[in-house]
Amino acid sequence: MDAVVIIDLCGTFAFAISGVMAAVERKFDLFGTIILAFATALGGGTLRDVLIGSTPVGWMESDVHIYLIFSTIPMAFLFFKMLTKLKRTFFIFDTLGIGLFTVLGMEKAISLGLSPLVSVMMGVVTAVFGGIIRDVLSSRVPIIFEKEIYAFACLSGALTYLGFKTIHVNEEFNLFFSVAVVITIRLLAIKYKWSIPFNPLVSKRD
Amino acid sequence: MDAVVIIDLCGTFAFAISGVMAAVERKFDLFGTIILAFATALGGGTLRDVLIGSTPVGWMESDVHIYLIFSTIPMAFLFFKMLTKLKRTFFIFDTLGIGLFTVLGMEKAISLGLSPLVSVMMGVVTAVFGGIIRDVLSSRVPIIFEKEIYAFACLSGALTYLGFKTIHVNEEFNLFFSVAVVITIRLLAIKYKWSIPFNPLVSKRD
Amino acid sequence: MDAVVIIDLCGTFAFAISGVMAAVERKFDLFGTIILAFATALGGGTLRDVLIGSTPVGWMESDVHIYLIFSTIPMAFLFFKMLTKLKRTFFIFDTLGIGLFTVLGMEKAISLGLSPLVSVMMGVVTAVFGGIIRDVLSSRVPIIFEKEIYAFACLSGALTYLGFKTIHVNEEFNLFFSVAVVITIRLLAIKYKWSIPFNPLVSKRD
Repeated sequence: MDAVVIIDLCGTFAFAISGVMAAVERKFDLFGTIILAFATALGGGTLRDVLIGSTPVGWMESDVHIYLIFSTIPMAFLFFKMLTKLKRTFFIFDTLGIGLFTVLGMEKAISLGLSPLVSVMMGVVTAVFGGIIRDVLSSRVPIIFEKEIYAFACLSGALTYLGFKTIHVNEEFNLFFSVAVVITIRLLAIKYKWSIPFNPLVSKRD
Repeated sequence: MDAVVIIDLCGTFAFAISGVMAAVERKFDLFGTIILAFATALGGGTLRDVLIGSTPVGWMESDVHIYLIFSTIPMAFLFFKMLTKLKRTFFIFDTLGIGLFTVLGMEKAISLGLSPLVSVMMGVVTAVFGGIIRDVLSSRVPIIFEKEIYAFACLSGALTYLGFKTIHVNEEFNLFFSVAVVITIRLLAIKYKWSIPFNPLVSKRD
Repeated sequence: MDAVVIIDLCGTFAFAISGVMAAVERKFDLFGTIILAFATALGGGTLRDVLIGSTPVGWMESDVHIYLIFSTIPMAFLFFKMLTKLKRTFFIFDTLGIGLFTVLGMEKAISLGLSPLVSVMMGVVTAVFGGIIRDVLSSRVPIIFEKEIYAFACLSGALTYLGFKTIHVNEEFNLFFSVAVVITIRLLAIKYKWSIPFNPLVSKRD
């Protein structure tokens, strides 16, 4: 499935760039930048593989992901200003990435015979834990816990994929449609400034 | 062993509530609250399973733990005030939970042929790492590193269990007695305000 | 290979001491100190084993590492002042440790049939993640991300080892030479105050 590989690599690339830019903001040295790029790009899939027992973890099968992630360092060095301006473009890549990571993560869990519910969770883990690990390594509260809508975007995509799979919709259509659901929800959320639901408990406390 | 299953679920439930309440205190959004509930309730057992190579990790075998943890979210929303008042009751659940998690963690390690010493460590890991992961995800120093007695409570329970097992005491008696040791030590610690031993090194430095 | 075992234990010991001293600085209690000693000493190798699927993780095979790490607690209590003065000596142990951990980590990955590039990464992970986990558990930004040269020292050692292995240099010579590369670079870095390269991106932003 060539399209999947290409979008997987785009997602990895976009997440790596997001790691590099976070490292710059935190003034890490070159080594810290490299670690953060890898952790952001590979962290979600790695955690999924470790939890479901699919080891050595997936990205070790070939060196492609490693070269791709390393390439973001000089690239970010050369094109830093442009990248900052292109934030919107990367946001698209990043959104594409989480869409596909969600679906890929689910597929891998389903193929190992795990339950649909566990598989949805593994899809979400694949998509969001790269960013969580990035923030934990930076000694910050994960941004996704405080003001990101995209957990719900990828949850919706995961449920869509699961529903269509259950009724045997064509696999490739299902894949692209589910990724599109993630992207659409995230884009709409930005455009219409949907804020994440505040924790319903917080108001109770005040 | 029905009693074990029931208390396991009680422990999971109590830990999940503890995660939800921590998330509220930190003003996380709904997604952050869900993640924190899962990490607190399942983190210790998950780390144990990953370290000993028992994957897919235990809670993936059925969906019961997942439903149970999700159920704490609306429950906490509806009964937040009551929960705050019932802190003492939850403290009992939580203590029950760590007692049983300690013993279950040891059993699993022993059954895989690991050494008694390693098994004691895996028991303690099962009981305490849920809370440690909760605190790391919240970008806080784990509370257990600074002012919790319960690491020693569960260590005592683990050693009791190991000792009785070595001399072939009846399994069920051993299980309940060891859990009781954990609970008793923790309750006594609260009642008589046993403070945790300060790090003996600290005074040396000053 | 007796020399390897001895230096492995020296490295474990030195890392455990580094964990204990970090815990003292952060005023953790005794339990927090023990956890930090274990996490620092075993964290890197544990993460490597989990990622490559070599579980139960290596240190569970015997109790030697556990006893050794526990022994650092009373030792640090008794000799704390001396340890502080001997920082330079420990620095040597620590450097020896990362040198050997790098090479051991690579070897283990290679022996599982992973690619040379992945193996180099696993060598670096083995050497540096103990310290990263120590800092994350202390809710600090990993020191290695901000001002440590030794990531590059162990990367150089890993590449040396890989290069010599490729041209079939004698295994033991290669081992010692590669460890020596790590140590030499680190010592030179200290002596001549090589600072870590600042993140090349940082200046771009300002």
